[in-house]
Amino acid sequence: MTDSRSQQPPIDVPKGLAGVVVTETALGDVRGGEGFYHYRQYSAVELARSRSFEDVWHLLFEGGLPDAERSAAFASRVAALRHLPPEVKDALPVIARASRGAGPLTGLRTALSLYGAAAGLRPLYDTDPAHRAQDALAACAAVPTILTALHRIGQGQEPVEPRDDLGHAANYLYMLTGREPDPEHARAIGQYLVSTADHGFNASTFAARVIASTGADLVACLVGGVGAFSGPLHGGAPSRALDTLDAIGTPERIDPWIRERVLAGERIMGFGHAVYRTEDPRSRMLRTIAQKFGGPLIDFAVRVEERVEAILAELKPGRELHTNVEFYAGVVMEQCGLPREMFTPTFAVARVVGWSANILEQAEDRKIIRPAARYVGPPPPQPVPAGRPA
Amino acid sequence: MTDSRSQQPPIDVPKGLAGVVVTETALGDVRGGEGFYHYRQYSAVELARSRSFEDVWHLLFEGGLPDAERSAAFASRVAALRHLPPEVKDALPVIARASRGAGPLTGLRTALSLYGAAAGLRPLYDTDPAHRAQDALAACAAVPTILTALHRIGQGQEPVEPRDDLGHAANYLYMLTGREPDPEHARAIGQYLVSTADHGFNASTFAARVIASTGADLVACLVGGVGAFSGPLHGGAPSRALDTLDAIGTPERIDPWIRERVLAGERIMGFGHAVYRTEDPRSRMLRTIAQKFGGPLIDFAVRVEERVEAILAELKPGRELHTNVEFYAGVVMEQCGLPREMFTPTFAVARVVGWSANILEQAEDRKIIRPAARYVGPPPPQPVPAGRPA
Repeated sequence: MTDSRSQQPPIDVPKGLAGVVVTETALGDVRGGEGFYHYRQYSAVELARSRSFEDVWHLLFEGGLPDAERSAAFASRVAALRHLPPEVKDALPVIARASRGAGPLTGLRTALSLYGAAAGLRPLYDTDPAHRAQDALAACAAVPTILTALHRIGQGQEPVEPRDDLGHAANYLYMLTGREPDPEHARAIGQYLVSTADHGFNASTFAARVIASTGADLVACLVGGVGAFSGPLHGGAPSRALDTLDAIGTPERIDPWIRERVLAGERIMGFGHAVYRTEDPRSRMLRTIAQKFGGPLIDFAVRVEERVEAILAELKPGRELHTNVEFYAGVVMEQCGLPREMFTPTFAVARVVGWSANILEQAEDRKIIRPAARYVGPPPPQPVPAGRPA
Repeated sequence: MTDSRSQQPPIDVPKGLAGVVVTETALGDVRGGEGFYHYRQYSAVELARSRSFEDVWHLLFEGGLPDAERSAAFASRVAALRHLPPEVKDALPVIARASRGAGPLTGLRTALSLYGAAAGLRPLYDTDPAHRAQDALAACAAVPTILTALHRIGQGQEPVEPRDDLGHAANYLYMLTGREPDPEHARAIGQYLVSTADHGFNASTFAARVIASTGADLVACLVGGVGAFSGPLHGGAPSRALDTLDAIGTPERIDPWIRERVLAGERIMGFGHAVYRTEDPRSRMLRTIAQKFGGPLIDFAVRVEERVEAILAELKPGRELHTNVEFYAGVVMEQCGLPREMFTPTFAVARVVGWSANILEQAEDRKIIRPAARYVGPPPPQPVPAGRPA
């Protein structure tokens, strides 16, 4: 038992631990002022432009980008791990039915927990690094299979078995639709996955690392990450930004709609980020991808972006507001034919790799993360009034 | 999207956030130097002696101990919530089968996640306090039903439906065995549950509060708590202490066994605590309960405790080592007929109430907990070597 407060004198820090350095990491960072983020020593956006999701996964797990031979070997290794064990496959209809009203992240949370149980994962501290990395590889490879199967079952369709000859993004689209994906769509979703695989020390990553610090098994940590990710203050919801575009409806309604929101001080979904003071670098990349596809949706989205920035400059001078990753992510996913309820799950397909890399890094640390709380209630001990005994 | 590092300058603190005050709480505290811990303004041990588990649950959730009328009303409210929804009941055999090798906490993690999905819980920040408290009451009431059902299914037995006319502890024993429990056993387990319902700001409580701070739903937070609780650096395992007694075997082997361990510098399970410098107050209370039952196991346990303290005083003068909550908890649970694999789950039956009270408190705060990490890898941006594109 080590479940209580430490003996150190209390240390006061900003609320929400803002700026408090909880760990060192070699995985990456976000430089909000510069509009730049990186995985290890590489620009994440540059990686999204030039490397496959599996290569970036290798970078985060193994520490470096693979050469051609290792790249192919790693991709095959991942592909072979996409198949679910029968106990999990059999349970998916039950999970899909029970989670019907609760959303796909809730289904993922349950199915991933079951996946971990079926895999008989051992506590992190009882395993060696190679064993842990293999478990993490398997769990990350299983997530797209779980999510697409739950989605299809919810639609009254049969799940589609993974195909080992497709890359991670292409196979994800294939399992979702049952059709060979358009290579341009697979490439765009692959770039989206790379760009959202990790993003500094966010709340779900921290939750996963706190759980990892107790030595719990890998999936216990991932399930905590999924839980935190589902919180409205954390997880992006790329579908919300599209809902905004739907709500505006037509080009002539753009200006009055935005003016009304800005004057009322309301938040506009898809705009604004806690860290970036410049444009979100993910947004910029995704806009370029969306513009390559072209079409009325992207034209409309670009127009809305321009008008939000212009109207803000007019009504609230000095207050800059840029699109965040949600805005063009929603446009790209819509262009690639993803159903809206799969937008946030697609984000999770990417981010599970970031969580896992963080859990593997935390497991090397072997030190529990356990801060303190300050008791501010009435002073004890007060006599306990008589009542029903145990 | 608010998933990245804050703009504050980095603040360095001790590793593992030891002593860093992350929140204020009115729920309780642990005073390690004094061997004292409390729930709100009352000594937890005093509460265990004189009040039912439901009364203490009321204290943690509602802020005060109930009078006789409210006590009965609260107990009835809890009792009515013990029944599982059919979707969850139907899924338990599948979960039990898949979790066979992974232990009961893994089964609980999955089943509780499914329970939350089936309940269609909304994000914490989208609900009012009364609604949240009702959801938490329901989830805590369901945990014993889930755990006993999974256990019985694993043993090839039918789950036993909860009985609304029994107190929480008595009904737990009833669902486990299918027999009316001995009132003395129910009382002892009730006292154990009170004494372990909460214990300062431990790692699972912190994990649950981090997830709560994103506004995720109540069960997302509880599932994170269960995950952290399953980590070997956190969760107590009362069965381990009994395993120690088994390993020693007979009274004449006590001294040589202990001497060997102490000289080798090995840890003795059931002894030592991160915070208490004195006897663990829970241990003292549980020893008294165990001694009331009497029998060879408690005599043996007390003898082992005496000899560990004496041999330490002889071989490592100045180094005090006391029994922790695990030691006599294991003895009491064995005396009450609980199977060993249910010792840690029984701890979870109690602690889920502490986690929930903490989640409800955190939900009032509406501020995300998101510290920072320091990037220590090679400096970016390095050019990305050519390779397989997305």
